[in-house]
Amino acid sequence: MISGHPFDDDKLREECGVFGVFGREDAGALTILGLHALQHRGEEGVGVASYNGTFHHARHVGLVGDAFDETQPKPNLPGRSAIGHVRYSTTGGSLAANVQPMYADLAGGGVALAHNGNLTNARSLKRDLVTRGAIFQSTSDTEVILHLMATSRLRGTADRIIDALRQVEGAFSLVALTTKKLIGVRDPLGVRPLVLGRIGDGWVFSSETCGLDIIGATFVRDVEPGEMVIINDQGLMSLRPFNAVPPRFCIFEYVYFARPDSMVEGRNVYEVRKQIGRELAREHAVAADMVIPIPDSGVPAAIGYASGSGIDFELGIIRNHYVGRTFIQPTQEIRDIGVKLKHNTNRAQIAGKRVVLVDDSIVRGTTSRKIIQMVRDAGATEVHMRIASPPTMNPCFYGVDTPRRENLMAANMMVEAMRQKINADSLGFISIDGLYRAVGEAKRDTELPQFCDACFTGDYPTILTDELNDQKSEQLPLLSVEDSSDDLPNAAA
Amino acid sequence: MISGHPFDDDKLREECGVFGVFGREDAGALTILGLHALQHRGEEGVGVASYNGTFHHARHVGLVGDAFDETQPKPNLPGRSAIGHVRYSTTGGSLAANVQPMYADLAGGGVALAHNGNLTNARSLKRDLVTRGAIFQSTSDTEVILHLMATSRLRGTADRIIDALRQVEGAFSLVALTTKKLIGVRDPLGVRPLVLGRIGDGWVFSSETCGLDIIGATFVRDVEPGEMVIINDQGLMSLRPFNAVPPRFCIFEYVYFARPDSMVEGRNVYEVRKQIGRELAREHAVAADMVIPIPDSGVPAAIGYASGSGIDFELGIIRNHYVGRTFIQPTQEIRDIGVKLKHNTNRAQIAGKRVVLVDDSIVRGTTSRKIIQMVRDAGATEVHMRIASPPTMNPCFYGVDTPRRENLMAANMMVEAMRQKINADSLGFISIDGLYRAVGEAKRDTELPQFCDACFTGDYPTILTDELNDQKSEQLPLLSVEDSSDDLPNAAA
Amino acid sequence: MISGHPFDDDKLREECGVFGVFGREDAGALTILGLHALQHRGEEGVGVASYNGTFHHARHVGLVGDAFDETQPKPNLPGRSAIGHVRYSTTGGSLAANVQPMYADLAGGGVALAHNGNLTNARSLKRDLVTRGAIFQSTSDTEVILHLMATSRLRGTADRIIDALRQVEGAFSLVALTTKKLIGVRDPLGVRPLVLGRIGDGWVFSSETCGLDIIGATFVRDVEPGEMVIINDQGLMSLRPFNAVPPRFCIFEYVYFARPDSMVEGRNVYEVRKQIGRELAREHAVAADMVIPIPDSGVPAAIGYASGSGIDFELGIIRNHYVGRTFIQPTQEIRDIGVKLKHNTNRAQIAGKRVVLVDDSIVRGTTSRKIIQMVRDAGATEVHMRIASPPTMNPCFYGVDTPRRENLMAANMMVEAMRQKINADSLGFISIDGLYRAVGEAKRDTELPQFCDACFTGDYPTILTDELNDQKSEQLPLLSVEDSSDDLPNAAA
Amino acid sequence: MISGHPFDDDKLREECGVFGVFGREDAGALTILGLHALQHRGEEGVGVASYNGTFHHARHVGLVGDAFDETQPKPNLPGRSAIGHVRYSTTGGSLAANVQPMYADLAGGGVALAHNGNLTNARSLKRDLVTRGAIFQSTSDTEVILHLMATSRLRGTADRIIDALRQVEGAFSLVALTTKKLIGVRDPLGVRPLVLGRIGDGWVFSSETCGLDIIGATFVRDVEPGEMVIINDQGLMSLRPFNAVPPRFCIFEYVYFARPDSMVEGRNVYEVRKQIGRELAREHAVAADMVIPIPDSGVPAAIGYASGSGIDFELGIIRNHYVGRTFIQPTQEIRDIGVKLKHNTNRAQIAGKRVVLVDDSIVRGTTSRKIIQMVRDAGATEVHMRIASPPTMNPCFYGVDTPRRENLMAANMMVEAMRQKINADSLGFISIDGLYRAVGEAKRDTELPQFCDACFTGDYPTILTDELNDQKSEQLPLLSVEDSSDDLPNAAA
Repeated sequence: MISGHPFDDDKLREECGVFGVFGREDAGALTILGLHALQHRGEEGVGVASYNGTFHHARHVGLVGDAFDETQPKPNLPGRSAIGHVRYSTTGGSLAANVQPMYADLAGGGVALAHNGNLTNARSLKRDLVTRGAIFQSTSDTEVILHLMATSRLRGTADRIIDALRQVEGAFSLVALTTKKLIGVRDPLGVRPLVLGRIGDGWVFSSETCGLDIIGATFVRDVEPGEMVIINDQGLMSLRPFNAVPPRFCIFEYVYFARPDSMVEGRNVYEVRKQIGRELAREHAVAADMVIPIPDSGVPAAIGYASGSGIDFELGIIRNHYVGRTFIQPTQEIRDIGVKLKHNTNRAQIAGKRVVLVDDSIVRGTTSRKIIQMVRDAGATEVHMRIASPPTMNPCFYGVDTPRRENLMAANMMVEAMRQKINADSLGFISIDGLYRAVGEAKRDTELPQFCDACFTGDYPTILTDELNDQKSEQLPLLSVEDSSDDLPNAAA
Repeated sequence: MISGHPFDDDKLREECGVFGVFGREDAGALTILGLHALQHRGEEGVGVASYNGTFHHARHVGLVGDAFDETQPKPNLPGRSAIGHVRYSTTGGSLAANVQPMYADLAGGGVALAHNGNLTNARSLKRDLVTRGAIFQSTSDTEVILHLMATSRLRGTADRIIDALRQVEGAFSLVALTTKKLIGVRDPLGVRPLVLGRIGDGWVFSSETCGLDIIGATFVRDVEPGEMVIINDQGLMSLRPFNAVPPRFCIFEYVYFARPDSMVEGRNVYEVRKQIGRELAREHAVAADMVIPIPDSGVPAAIGYASGSGIDFELGIIRNHYVGRTFIQPTQEIRDIGVKLKHNTNRAQIAGKRVVLVDDSIVRGTTSRKIIQMVRDAGATEVHMRIASPPTMNPCFYGVDTPRRENLMAANMMVEAMRQKINADSLGFISIDGLYRAVGEAKRDTELPQFCDACFTGDYPTILTDELNDQKSEQLPLLSVEDSSDDLPNAAA
Repeated sequence: MISGHPFDDDKLREECGVFGVFGREDAGALTILGLHALQHRGEEGVGVASYNGTFHHARHVGLVGDAFDETQPKPNLPGRSAIGHVRYSTTGGSLAANVQPMYADLAGGGVALAHNGNLTNARSLKRDLVTRGAIFQSTSDTEVILHLMATSRLRGTADRIIDALRQVEGAFSLVALTTKKLIGVRDPLGVRPLVLGRIGDGWVFSSETCGLDIIGATFVRDVEPGEMVIINDQGLMSLRPFNAVPPRFCIFEYVYFARPDSMVEGRNVYEVRKQIGRELAREHAVAADMVIPIPDSGVPAAIGYASGSGIDFELGIIRNHYVGRTFIQPTQEIRDIGVKLKHNTNRAQIAGKRVVLVDDSIVRGTTSRKIIQMVRDAGATEVHMRIASPPTMNPCFYGVDTPRRENLMAANMMVEAMRQKINADSLGFISIDGLYRAVGEAKRDTELPQFCDACFTGDYPTILTDELNDQKSEQLPLLSVEDSSDDLPNAAA
Repeated sequence: MISGHPFDDDKLREECGVFGVFGREDAGALTILGLHALQHRGEEGVGVASYNGTFHHARHVGLVGDAFDETQPKPNLPGRSAIGHVRYSTTGGSLAANVQPMYADLAGGGVALAHNGNLTNARSLKRDLVTRGAIFQSTSDTEVILHLMATSRLRGTADRIIDALRQVEGAFSLVALTTKKLIGVRDPLGVRPLVLGRIGDGWVFSSETCGLDIIGATFVRDVEPGEMVIINDQGLMSLRPFNAVPPRFCIFEYVYFARPDSMVEGRNVYEVRKQIGRELAREHAVAADMVIPIPDSGVPAAIGYASGSGIDFELGIIRNHYVGRTFIQPTQEIRDIGVKLKHNTNRAQIAGKRVVLVDDSIVRGTTSRKIIQMVRDAGATEVHMRIASPPTMNPCFYGVDTPRRENLMAANMMVEAMRQKINADSLGFISIDGLYRAVGEAKRDTELPQFCDACFTGDYPTILTDELNDQKSEQLPLLSVEDSSDDLPNAAA
């Protein structure tokens, strides 16, 4: 129904959010509420699993608030522990099969998994598993982890998880529910966030702190990169089952993905964004009459830019709160209706003024062009575009939906060409070092970068096994996975 | 699904928005788009009627974007003229029967009506009509107008409209579609807005200018109080069929109802609200660290307050864009979950700070108390509440849904008592003269007020026939409208 | 979902069934059950109204069992009296507006009406009413009756009904619910059935006795032609408000419309149909190996034919109970899939045999041809068709949906041509006198026929005012009901 | 919506029907039609898989005609081969996961399976597979076969099927679709039916011949017990991959499951049922006025009983074609409304008569009692019940849903006690030898019965591994499949 991020077709998309509760009577309901607060991390599917002697599931395509609204049958999620997942679906076909948490009845007991991130060797692992007789029901990386657990020689569920995760590459922030435990674990680089909270006697895992706030839980600490936190009735235990490496948290979480009211890896997202705005004002100053954010994600950086530049902050673009699906289309002569369905300029305010527009990022650039035109149509004499991130030039393989490189504007043209294409009077991106300053670093350590910034720099922190295989397979003849047997079955002979 | 106005249970509600197009091939689609921009004036029902030799209808309960989204069958609304209506429903029961536009096949030809406003003698007129044999299908005032037209002795549809409207009291901004004409008309006081626009060779009526913007139409002028604008293939004609009185436009449209990007009666709503904020800063100054709006309706006044006071503007309360219906409820110990479903404070920003909260109005006060508590829980040391309107003390009878007087906080206690109840460190409402100054008047003319401000002052600009009758009938024995005949029908004798 | 009458596209259709209960706590639920038993009289819409101080309604498009099944919200139909209606919709457009019972809030009190039959002067009456200011919401004849009641000068509801019905022509079996009474009334000819039943202390009206059986009510008697039965808390009263004429009950109710287990005007429908079969065997004997009914409506006549002829009765055509809406269509080469979706021959039984097929009627003949072909494909050596009614040659104007005359097979060709067209080895219709004998008459009284048999004979028992007007208006220029006023309204002068 | 078998709660239920097409452009649509004809074998779920280079699926809960009706999106089932399945669901929970055909992407290529029957060692096989790392998504036996295929060491899909089926016990009539082949196979006993047909150049498998008739396919022959028929572009090949045993076709298919117009194992079902009626008349003669079938399944046996006894056949119980889900319930005083929703007696016919009722079987007996009471209420002076099968005393483990033994009336009382309980004047079941005579055998061969008649005799033709294990496990302590690991994972050490 609704998109929390405007112009959503022209933004990168976080693919998932996870949540878990242990030791509370209303674990299922708390998980639903937590997922509602994490909805911006995945709008297309929601699932919850709870345990009370048996595992219970509720999985839906769509928003949390629609799936569990009062007009729907009450979900049956009894038990004192539960996990949940929101997702953004990139794959077509049977959406429902991919909705998490995924469940399996292993020899050592049942387990439900909810996974934020993306594995870079999933396809390669899957090929091996199928050869050994595994039957896959979905296209999700999470099922690869489940099959690695199922075929593990180890006995306990937690052991099987470790055995499985030691074989995977890439990013994972994972919560697992077993018959006795709730487990939260982050990959050694800690690419995706995961925090630990406390509510009464119970424990909570959440992708972001806003998931704790909604249920009144207290923030305890981040689950650390490479850490596995196991919670059972005896309490909490912390393990370090992986080889230690320097962490590389995703810097784009600060730019756009995380909610401004969240604390992420020790920093408040809103404050980082405001600081980005101040850096932008320093790096790309301009004489103007007002600073206008592209709502809603550009607001904190625009406030920072206004504060840094001394130019007035104005809400000159009004967002329509009733944005829905693609809408009835009028005849061709009405242009850019898509943008107008979601926004309108305040003409009375803008006419005759020099405007600085602040946005968080430019992906394809198509929407930027339309917004600038709309501001010009409202009578602005100059339109200066300021972007709160460096140019986005590379795809992400760690759980973000990125368009193909040929559709990333910055991967295909220089800033001046981009300025002309979006028809701005000036265009300024924050520098990579400016961004690192905004998050509190002196500058980017080029030898050992403090964050994953591959979408800006192309510097990927892991091997990309599946990508490399794909590139190879484009050169070599494929081995058919078709039915290659003769027509007469041998067994019948 | 979504509410454009947060905390909607604690706001006054505009009851309707109207729209009309004449002389455009895609009149039906343009009307749907216009209504989408007017959605904040009525979220519960949407209807469109078009004419191409026959009248066509599409009426739905719910939002425009849901009713006409791409997953629904395409509406069948052919023709070069169309009108539409969004509504907020106060009545229970059969919602569908009340969705406008209402249509009647009169002896002189068909007519469809869409009406914003409320009549203060509708019940009295209805009683007369039923006695004369009229059969009513709805509880809507609009149907009263239709029956007055149907039983008029005049021939032409426009004449019948005039004949009907001369018998009614109250507020109406009305668009009517006949087989040959599109008609827009406002009551003599001009309580509700209605503007005229131009798109190519076509004409447009809209409750607000934001309805013109979305379809790329140009604003021509307001339809004036007491004016009837008739459009047909020969062009546009303006009539003044009512006795002239000084206009009394609803001042609350500036405070809350109208969209900030709309021009209403010559003033930009956003600028008026910012000016209210500046007046508030002058009338109710306070030492503080930041000004935080209650999103989203408090934003322009908060920007004005920040600008007037020199205190920083911060977006310290983050709105969840995914608000839906009433939601699954966890156990009792989690309090105020309703507010948290829609908003979260940014603790990192607020903790240890003195905060000025700015909201547009206080109706029941229940939400204000919860928000202030949430801000205190986030660590604010002081919370000062500033309200961009005078205390709301009286019900509206002109098309706004107001709670009963006993539920209007300001009707039942003084400001200091209100402050205690909502638990603010200080509470300041703009004065009535301050509000008049913000809209550009020197002060309120107490003899002949320039606006309808009855909700603040109790000074109603029309007779309230139905109200008076209701008060009388509480004292006198009622004449039964029951079947009072004997059991044996006389006709059978 | 389901059709009680197979091959429904090639049958005449009864347009309505009515039901009413007075003086029972569960009047609403009983009415729903009664309508379920009357479902064959109207499959496309169902409505119920009840009264407990206020009138309550539940109206749905579709089958009773779908509208009120356990997965739907429980209908809110409190009160000790209720009426209901099932209908077959002939009109397109807004089905919902035509679903009965229709309700009006008259000056003398509220009234709900459910009507079986059709008026032959409805359009003419409607034209007068609109000229006098009435606003119509539907295309239903029933609304004409309501407006005649609304504009009546009489006071009591029952008086107004009589006043209204004295102005109408045609067929009506009507139940009316007022604040104090339940009323059942039949037109003077008694074209459509209506029976009176008793359940405990309560009273019941039903179109057929099968509606009494399902709720365990006892059959009391038929409401008589021209009789008005009024029930209130004091008991039952019978009036004769119309001029007496000899009755003309619809003989086709025996042939096809009524359920075989119903008693209609003193005769058991199943027994009449079996007797028709015996008459057919006498009039159209043939040497054959088996008698096969076209299921399910041909079964009783086939049993009668088998009994009369001594030929074995066999269920050689099996009906698929899962017939639904029009279905996915395979490629062109698979022929007659429509018939096969609903029926299949039992090849093992039919192959090499001489078959007599018995059907109740032939309307268009299209299905007969397909069935005969299916029986030939199964290996029958001869196929003899016997029809349990005379050739259907004329449209019905009394509440039956008949195709246009050009689509009535018997209106356009002689029996021998029909035989060739449907490809039967022989074709025999029962004679009109044979049909009268089967219902217990010596023969048809050609001066004053005992039944309405206009569909066979063209001998209509009433004036057909609307038909005559239509024929006239095809010759004369129409007076426009368009908006004929000048563009400048006079009232404005 | 609809039940093909009346009184469905008191009948045994066939659990599945299967269908497959090879070598026809419209294979998907033909499969849907075929399944529509097999709907009586499974009313709760329908699925189709087709192949055109990729596998396509359409799976729905509910009836074929609802799942694929014209109001639904057209199913996307391209390709020249397809298989389908209708099922009756006994398991609660996630119905959708169990809907067949089931698909797996094996190392040797994809395969889709549709299975009629039930395995008697499925739970035991599943336990082994899970221990070896298999993850199950459903509770269906079919998934066991898929996992046995996935973990087979053989290469070709057909070889893997054989390898898998050699490990299972019980009943299976299976169709499998691979990238190149369509395979149909029956278990060595041939408990469930499966026939082979031809349509143009294409081939068809169907559970019953009525599935061939609907698409105009020609019956070729039964797939034989223990036979595997493999069809590819080169033609058809027949294998015998299992050890040969004497066949034991389910005799209850003749009594009730199969459609009367089907040819099953060389016999016409209708003729067998009529012959059962004649045997019944001989074994249990009685003086009476009419023979009335319990519709619809009792009709052929009733015709046979009438023919054998010389008593008139009458349709004295009328079935309501509009039976739906459980319905609104009136107050307690109206009894047996469940039966009346579906049937009504023809009082006029029955009153004062001695009636023989003929039904196919008695399971719980609850419905028989209600029907007899309804016939008595209609005025019958005597009611004699005749049952077209021996007493049903044992559960079926081969694909029929049977109530627990304590709910099988005949398992808990003698015939005289049953007669008293259902309140019949006499009660007669056909003898087991009479039933064998009706299907053309001289008598039951007690050494080596010609059919599976375990539901009557308790003589099961296979080992019941899962049943035996269940009985054992009730005596022995269970090994827990719980998470038995210590809280500290060893892998972390």
